[in-house]
Amino acid sequence: MNIGTDGGKEMSKEIALQQIRIKDPFWSGMQEKITDTVIPFQERVLNDKEEGVEKSHALDNFRIAAGLMEGEFYGMVFQDSDVAKWLEGVAYSLVIKPDAALEQRADDIIDIIAKAQQPDGYLNTFFTIKEPEHRWQNLLECHELYCAGHMMEAAVAYYEATGKDKLLGVMERMAQHIMNRFGEDKIPGIPGHQEVEIGLMRMYHATGKEAYKDMARYFLEERGKNPNFFKEETERRGWTHFGNMIPDDTKYNQSHATIYEQDEAVGHSVRAVYMYTAMADLAAEDHDEKLFAACRRLWENMTQKKMFITGGIGSTVEGEAFTKEYELPNDMNYAETCASIGLVFFARNMLKTEKNGRYADVMERALYNGIISGMQLDGKRFFYVNPLEVNPGVSGEIFGYKHVIPERPGWYACACCPPNLVRMVTSLGKYAWDEDETAVYSHLFLGQEAALGKADIRVESAYPWEGSVTYHVSAKIDELFTLAIHIPAYVKDLRVTVNGEAFDTAGEIRDGYLYISRKWGSDDQVELHFPLPVRKIYASTHVREDVGCVALMRGPVVYCFEGADNGANLQALAVKKELDAKALVCTEGRLSGLTLLDVAGIRLVPSEELYTEEPPKEETVTLRAIPYFAWGNRGLNQMRVWMHEK
Amino acid sequence: MNIGTDGGKEMSKEIALQQIRIKDPFWSGMQEKITDTVIPFQERVLNDKEEGVEKSHALDNFRIAAGLMEGEFYGMVFQDSDVAKWLEGVAYSLVIKPDAALEQRADDIIDIIAKAQQPDGYLNTFFTIKEPEHRWQNLLECHELYCAGHMMEAAVAYYEATGKDKLLGVMERMAQHIMNRFGEDKIPGIPGHQEVEIGLMRMYHATGKEAYKDMARYFLEERGKNPNFFKEETERRGWTHFGNMIPDDTKYNQSHATIYEQDEAVGHSVRAVYMYTAMADLAAEDHDEKLFAACRRLWENMTQKKMFITGGIGSTVEGEAFTKEYELPNDMNYAETCASIGLVFFARNMLKTEKNGRYADVMERALYNGIISGMQLDGKRFFYVNPLEVNPGVSGEIFGYKHVIPERPGWYACACCPPNLVRMVTSLGKYAWDEDETAVYSHLFLGQEAALGKADIRVESAYPWEGSVTYHVSAKIDELFTLAIHIPAYVKDLRVTVNGEAFDTAGEIRDGYLYISRKWGSDDQVELHFPLPVRKIYASTHVREDVGCVALMRGPVVYCFEGADNGANLQALAVKKELDAKALVCTEGRLSGLTLLDVAGIRLVPSEELYTEEPPKEETVTLRAIPYFAWGNRGLNQMRVWMHEK
Repeated sequence: MNIGTDGGKEMSKEIALQQIRIKDPFWSGMQEKITDTVIPFQERVLNDKEEGVEKSHALDNFRIAAGLMEGEFYGMVFQDSDVAKWLEGVAYSLVIKPDAALEQRADDIIDIIAKAQQPDGYLNTFFTIKEPEHRWQNLLECHELYCAGHMMEAAVAYYEATGKDKLLGVMERMAQHIMNRFGEDKIPGIPGHQEVEIGLMRMYHATGKEAYKDMARYFLEERGKNPNFFKEETERRGWTHFGNMIPDDTKYNQSHATIYEQDEAVGHSVRAVYMYTAMADLAAEDHDEKLFAACRRLWENMTQKKMFITGGIGSTVEGEAFTKEYELPNDMNYAETCASIGLVFFARNMLKTEKNGRYADVMERALYNGIISGMQLDGKRFFYVNPLEVNPGVSGEIFGYKHVIPERPGWYACACCPPNLVRMVTSLGKYAWDEDETAVYSHLFLGQEAALGKADIRVESAYPWEGSVTYHVSAKIDELFTLAIHIPAYVKDLRVTVNGEAFDTAGEIRDGYLYISRKWGSDDQVELHFPLPVRKIYASTHVREDVGCVALMRGPVVYCFEGADNGANLQALAVKKELDAKALVCTEGRLSGLTLLDVAGIRLVPSEELYTEEPPKEETVTLRAIPYFAWGNRGLNQMRVWMHEK
Repeated sequence: MNIGTDGGKEMSKEIALQQIRIKDPFWSGMQEKITDTVIPFQERVLNDKEEGVEKSHALDNFRIAAGLMEGEFYGMVFQDSDVAKWLEGVAYSLVIKPDAALEQRADDIIDIIAKAQQPDGYLNTFFTIKEPEHRWQNLLECHELYCAGHMMEAAVAYYEATGKDKLLGVMERMAQHIMNRFGEDKIPGIPGHQEVEIGLMRMYHATGKEAYKDMARYFLEERGKNPNFFKEETERRGWTHFGNMIPDDTKYNQSHATIYEQDEAVGHSVRAVYMYTAMADLAAEDHDEKLFAACRRLWENMTQKKMFITGGIGSTVEGEAFTKEYELPNDMNYAETCASIGLVFFARNMLKTEKNGRYADVMERALYNGIISGMQLDGKRFFYVNPLEVNPGVSGEIFGYKHVIPERPGWYACACCPPNLVRMVTSLGKYAWDEDETAVYSHLFLGQEAALGKADIRVESAYPWEGSVTYHVSAKIDELFTLAIHIPAYVKDLRVTVNGEAFDTAGEIRDGYLYISRKWGSDDQVELHFPLPVRKIYASTHVREDVGCVALMRGPVVYCFEGADNGANLQALAVKKELDAKALVCTEGRLSGLTLLDVAGIRLVPSEELYTEEPPKEETVTLRAIPYFAWGNRGLNQMRVWMHEK
């Protein structure tokens, strides 16, 4: 089924995953690792059948709540969300790689979830099994709405993937339960961890029921109206769950001000971008300019003052949070994989309202760098924290750096990022296009076959390694329409041909999109060619960590330098001011197939004395850079993105 | 009385404080602030008579233990040491500025201490009042030997200052108590916090009794013989005091290996340098080459791989400890004032064996920079931590930087550094000279009148602001002897005259000392003149934090840059590669009298975009640098020592 283009359902303009079949030299292999390695692994974990991994019990919690087995609740108060995230990933994977046995197992799990739902629609195994008397009393800590939001996302994804609406029905009843309780003239409430707003918006998109959108708006607009909400809630109930969460720290969960008053990205970065994601979705759906302006302020602040060059966000481990503007420490940052994924959610929803390259550029930045750096190239280990500099003996060891693990730990050590990567990479097709009455918008260069409303479009792409992308357009309508293609901001010397003839782009590239309007035939070809030179990037000198340094990019790919290629003391290596860099394809070893760089550089020879009046001697050397996302695949060694320039 | 030169007491070759009368434009004012402001303040604190300060109760603990009042012990397990450190400072202050009333009050306190001593010689108010059954069972945590060591230092200082031996007698009995208990063929023991070794060595110097030196050697050499000592002790007793001290972390207190096996400065930096101080003293006293070689290894490692340019040591707040070699973070370091003071203790004792400028240079480095930065210029507030970079909004606020307070807190917040500064600055004369059979060694340029064995020497000094020092020598002996003057390693173009005639220094400067041997008259003048250009200093490129940066020094003074003079974003300012710096004397405001620098620099203008291919635009600017020790005297603002070079 195809929600977006089957004509009847005006309420959803979203591209459905079924419309897209990715065939991309870069992404297809990654999707395969996810479907073949990651999803089965997670299933074993959820069933407590994986050795050497921390006990999950997440499915057993549902079985117990469903009355299907005896036992106690085990795990975090938000353990249910592990099942939800897995189910959402399974849904996408069933679209890109059908698997009847997997679908059957997922159906069985959905049956259990349905049985765990209470007669009044309530669904949460922690409170059902363990503390039924405490339901809805601790929104600050207890993640009931967060778990509901994730299960709503899973329900919509599963419905859209399979057409089966059992879980959707479960979550419609849970949504009704929530709506019966919270709202204007009811009990005031906001989630301690935003997510239900996204879930409700997706329920709205899938069903067309305005009530879900209204509820999402309520949660968003209620937030910060009473900055003492969580404090008063805490005083009222007189008990805590974790005990260490400070209700006064309202910035942590973005409840310090209303969404219209917030103009700085603060607090827990995943909470923040999940909230912004729902805000942008709602703004687009309601053509709400005031709300979109609020989104724009937060977007600009975050991406222009608080984002790492890799698309990482979150500068400190304490609260997994944003800190001060321009405070972007490379070696003790957080840049959680999940936060970069949330940044892509936000960017994607901003594009719904405004087709502007600033959003697609950041989407690219996060996708090709700070998100996929979270996964080992073989799909077997994951990073939670994505540093831009690691130093063995310091990273992961010394106070301040202990969270910066210099090698990807085993799966068990990080429970939230792998499933988020799963759902991001398997649903990538949803990020590639928008379509409105007059135009089709291509946001990403992605090899694929896309069955859109106005045309079937096959894309051949050598991206990100080569600046060569071809759109084969087969129109389905007999009218003029526009193909708008996002051109990354860094692209210079773009050459475009339409059916082999040069297309003059002058004046046709606006806000980062190339507009080609014509009456399309059954096999029109738009070819894009652009050079991918190695680029030296400077950070604003407001960023104290990066002054005097450059980072290298080629296309959307940020590069880094590892000790494995360059020896010890990367900090003593400098890239030459007159850039001399050569791209080459790695043909062996773990980085095989990736484009690496040979870069003319200088080694600053360490002095004998710790402090000396002699400037360091300089030796000419050739440096080797590798894609940032591929760092840490060759054992423990030093790594730097920002290199001195000399 | 004059222990060093009264002929009879061969055992002590140390210069007594009474021999030195400091009259120095730089140090005399600082001594005055200590005697007139700091010591009286501390006395009020110890007597619980200072408002707004954390309760001390330290003197009341002694009164209670002495049976002079009723009550409970209050404070840290090492609260006694506060009294000891104050008494030691008082002793020195009575030499440099006699004060009969203060001396009487000190005598009264000593009477109380004597009464608090137990019949068996034991002295410690915590265990006497609170846990008499737990004496000597918890050397790891409970600081009994540490407190004893400080009180021994106080006793010796007070005896040497006043000739009164009551406290010395008390501590001789305590030393005997300790010697009765610990040692070869007795109970094995080592202190959890080294200090008693220093105290015992000073008792030995003051009394000539070898037993004290032997006991110091025992504690030093027993350390690390059984690396499980504290673990076994912990298991044996089955109780803990603080609860959070890990007996397995043997590097923390340097008990991981014997002193002869240790070749890296590790663990708690104050514990380390106190141990090294005693080792160097013992090595000198016993002409122990093996022990001295051990000291040399630790000295080289610490000063060439783990010392900040300011003479600060200790790279992390966690355990107030050394970390990895060359890991010297400017903005999240520790560099405790006390640790730099301990470094001077160590340097001074190394000079006893080896007259080498490497020790005197470090002594200068710490004295003129990382030690006196601990005190506000008016003597009213103190730093515990001495960062080389502070950034308002980050320092003191964000995780990893919370210990780096950007303004000196009130006294009460740091109990240990002010008294250590007191004893360092008031006893400065003891660091200025050594004397042996053939020579007098001047280690520091210090304006003073020194009554030495072979001569009275009056020194006129414009140091550190001008390279102009004159030694007026009035010989007391009718024989040829050598005046050896430490010439700092940075000095170039030294011009020396003896009685107005040029002295050819060629070949006469060896290992950092200028040797002038002659038959001295009653008024011979040695004049030293050397330029004090501003010097650009580079750190080894092994130090990742400092690559691409320079620090400025003039003479022994390290300079820094503050926002108060240079505006915001110090990280975007660079010192020009072709150094153009001018020294000027500040004539107004809080820095009045200090020599400041105007330095040609470049401002890197921040870009509009966070990341850009455009290198930052450059503006020529004049930067203002101030002495590092004077930072933080003009309100909250940014500060940097290491500046980019362009």
